[in-house]
Amino acid sequence: MNNDSSSRIVAGLSEWIATAAPGAKLPSTRTLVARYGASPVTVQKALRTLVAQGSVESRPGVGTFVRAVRVARPNDYGWQTAALGTPPHRIPQLSTALRTFPNDVIALHSGYPDRDLLPERLVRAAFTRAARGDAAVSRPPSAGLPELQAWFATELGSAMPVGVAPPAPSDVVVVPGSQSGLNSAFRAVVGEGRPLLVESPTYWGAILAAASAGVRVVPVPSGADGPDPDELARAFEQTGARAFYAQPNFANPTGARWAPDLAARVLDTVSRHGAFLIEDDWAHDFGIAADPVPIAARDDSGHIIYLRSLTKSVSPAVRIAAIVARGPARERILADAQAESMYVSGMLQAVALDVVTQPAWRTHLRNLRQQLAARRDLLVDALREHVPAARLEALPQGGLNLWVRLPDATDLPRLVRDCESAGVLIAPGGEWFPAEPTGAYLRLNYSGPNPGAFPDGARVIGQALAAQ
Amino acid sequence: MNNDSSSRIVAGLSEWIATAAPGAKLPSTRTLVARYGASPVTVQKALRTLVAQGSVESRPGVGTFVRAVRVARPNDYGWQTAALGTPPHRIPQLSTALRTFPNDVIALHSGYPDRDLLPERLVRAAFTRAARGDAAVSRPPSAGLPELQAWFATELGSAMPVGVAPPAPSDVVVVPGSQSGLNSAFRAVVGEGRPLLVESPTYWGAILAAASAGVRVVPVPSGADGPDPDELARAFEQTGARAFYAQPNFANPTGARWAPDLAARVLDTVSRHGAFLIEDDWAHDFGIAADPVPIAARDDSGHIIYLRSLTKSVSPAVRIAAIVARGPARERILADAQAESMYVSGMLQAVALDVVTQPAWRTHLRNLRQQLAARRDLLVDALREHVPAARLEALPQGGLNLWVRLPDATDLPRLVRDCESAGVLIAPGGEWFPAEPTGAYLRLNYSGPNPGAFPDGARVIGQALAAQ
Repeated sequence: MNNDSSSRIVAGLSEWIATAAPGAKLPSTRTLVARYGASPVTVQKALRTLVAQGSVESRPGVGTFVRAVRVARPNDYGWQTAALGTPPHRIPQLSTALRTFPNDVIALHSGYPDRDLLPERLVRAAFTRAARGDAAVSRPPSAGLPELQAWFATELGSAMPVGVAPPAPSDVVVVPGSQSGLNSAFRAVVGEGRPLLVESPTYWGAILAAASAGVRVVPVPSGADGPDPDELARAFEQTGARAFYAQPNFANPTGARWAPDLAARVLDTVSRHGAFLIEDDWAHDFGIAADPVPIAARDDSGHIIYLRSLTKSVSPAVRIAAIVARGPARERILADAQAESMYVSGMLQAVALDVVTQPAWRTHLRNLRQQLAARRDLLVDALREHVPAARLEALPQGGLNLWVRLPDATDLPRLVRDCESAGVLIAPGGEWFPAEPTGAYLRLNYSGPNPGAFPDGARVIGQALAAQ
Repeated sequence: MNNDSSSRIVAGLSEWIATAAPGAKLPSTRTLVARYGASPVTVQKALRTLVAQGSVESRPGVGTFVRAVRVARPNDYGWQTAALGTPPHRIPQLSTALRTFPNDVIALHSGYPDRDLLPERLVRAAFTRAARGDAAVSRPPSAGLPELQAWFATELGSAMPVGVAPPAPSDVVVVPGSQSGLNSAFRAVVGEGRPLLVESPTYWGAILAAASAGVRVVPVPSGADGPDPDELARAFEQTGARAFYAQPNFANPTGARWAPDLAARVLDTVSRHGAFLIEDDWAHDFGIAADPVPIAARDDSGHIIYLRSLTKSVSPAVRIAAIVARGPARERILADAQAESMYVSGMLQAVALDVVTQPAWRTHLRNLRQQLAARRDLLVDALREHVPAARLEALPQGGLNLWVRLPDATDLPRLVRDCESAGVLIAPGGEWFPAEPTGAYLRLNYSGPNPGAFPDGARVIGQALAAQ
């Protein structure tokens, strides 16, 4: 028998081994002799080759077995880089605000309210109830549970003065969280390569979604009073943009709340340019001194795409948001949301609706307001005492964050590192700027765990700053 | 007092009215006289103007009130069309398969298993349990709950023969349903404007996702035996594509399951072209005569992007899927998924993991297999009896659908209409073709409600066909 015959058996068995379970027994020598029409010597030679290759092991007197030990070898996925090519637009890293953290640090960096601030009892009860209902095993319509669409439409409609036509339930598209909503709105209303005006600084999740959607972001200077309306008008004229993304109430990170006069000017500018205001009402449930009235309550002409999320105020597990839009814009957004996720879990929709329609939800929001006020004031006082160099342009009347300016010479990366070494997590402000940061800012969140440690946290920041 | 003074009051009050609640009472005439420094006559004139404009109503002896009646007027959102421009790529309509339907029809069109086929008790118990746990109020890492990542990695790894390195839990990205997974994979691995090879016919949700991602779809002929490997190789060469999307086990709609030989050839072709196979293992839990082994179990070289969904087999409310990928491809997919949805509800992840790790899940899958076999055979027999002109190229060994060819001259839209009038919903095959349909096909789903009515449904189809 020649060498070829042995190779043929090796090839045949290798194919079999490739799909065999570890430990599987190979056919006996006698069977292989018959199957391949080869001599026992040739079959033995083939088996020895397979043993040498490491794919089988021989147990004398028992048989030959597919090796149960997995092969460990270094990965080489370099070829993928050629297949993938250069990404058309770089997606930024996830923000510091999304980092998870151990229990023993003082966390001023997070963007999510602590569990203490959630309506935990309501959420658990709603899940338990919904587990018994239809929502646990059925599929809702693509645009959302009709009852939840109606709730969102009514909430916005009830803030509208007479003379402004309220949205219909069918104007509401339920989406699986506000991040998905931003992506759908940017893709559907702006589109790849086209300009989108944004406040600077603005929410980092929106910067991320814009990058992901391939939208060209154009920064409009903003601050404690909201965006500069003259710069906004100029940006519309210079870029031909047809959309402006903003957070008119308690903007993240600045805390800005637009005065009625600014709201009117922005809306006028947007309308004059035949454009959309994409209003992200992220802090609707986080008013402290004031109840936020959406700018969308002033408009029924289809110029405002209104985004309202429940995730942060109900529970991070209940990823539910809604986009309220009218006309063709609503059609485009719905088509994008459907292509992206088909429909949103009816269970999460049922739970969200259950929570926000309980009388205890109103009570919860009232308590939340007091807690946020106390936490904000505690952190502000601690900063005044321990970080005198920090400047707070305005006391936010809602939201979850302080936007603090440090002296221009501050080495921010070093400050963040030094604070982290001392057990205090803070978020450098650069992540909230769509282009270059205009100063050394920190975003300090006062909704994290253990507010009693705020003074300690501020002391650490102050010491780290003084050490520079 | 001159006219200007009255206009000034009208303007001032209009601004106030614009943000006032319906039914709010205007300040008294005396107050307005003082505030505007105007005579009572001028104030009255201003109020009459507002009444005439319809924004307030006067109740003599009581006061003037913001009108509670909403203005009804036709919408004009025509300006939006200019702002939105032409969509860069048309997103197709949602499929017939997603239509909801009344109880009294015979539904052979749906893509979702009937509630009878779901592990309803397990799902409800899992939600009830999870409602008491951490998942209800906490936020999981972006790539997924580590335990669920590990479960997906182990499931795929356990199908791998020795010599193939199993995936690590960190190779798994949990996504909110397979539709989101397809979108992320297409955006991250293929990218806007680049070619993606797909079977023809193929899953309509993939055609939708490809359109949404702006990917250029290139059809590769496929049928009851899977794709034509020569055409696949040619398509790679001609287009320079670096990715092929396919469903190797119980493809939707054809039911095809790739023979080992075809699987090896496809994998070889894909590797030779430095490309990716995006394997959609949608029917992993729907094997009837055979247990599906993913093609991904043959590969550790990073050539396969493996998509595994639990939504259809666990519950439509538990929108959970996973992508298993290695190397830079996994990084790109994770970055896209994060930018799109930040993270997936930990509640849904906890429930999915709970269900699939219960011993009763295995029992459920065994029962499901028997039910699917019985339903499939019932529908096949009914078609043989009542629709003799229908040709079934092969009996599917898994999945939820029959792919039936009708005589070429069939007027398919008329057939669908006629059947619907007679209370039978069927899905025309055209929706599953990325380009032109190559024949008059129907996709008939045997996992819908009330299988006892399958013979009646087949009779209606047969009669409608005979009437043509």
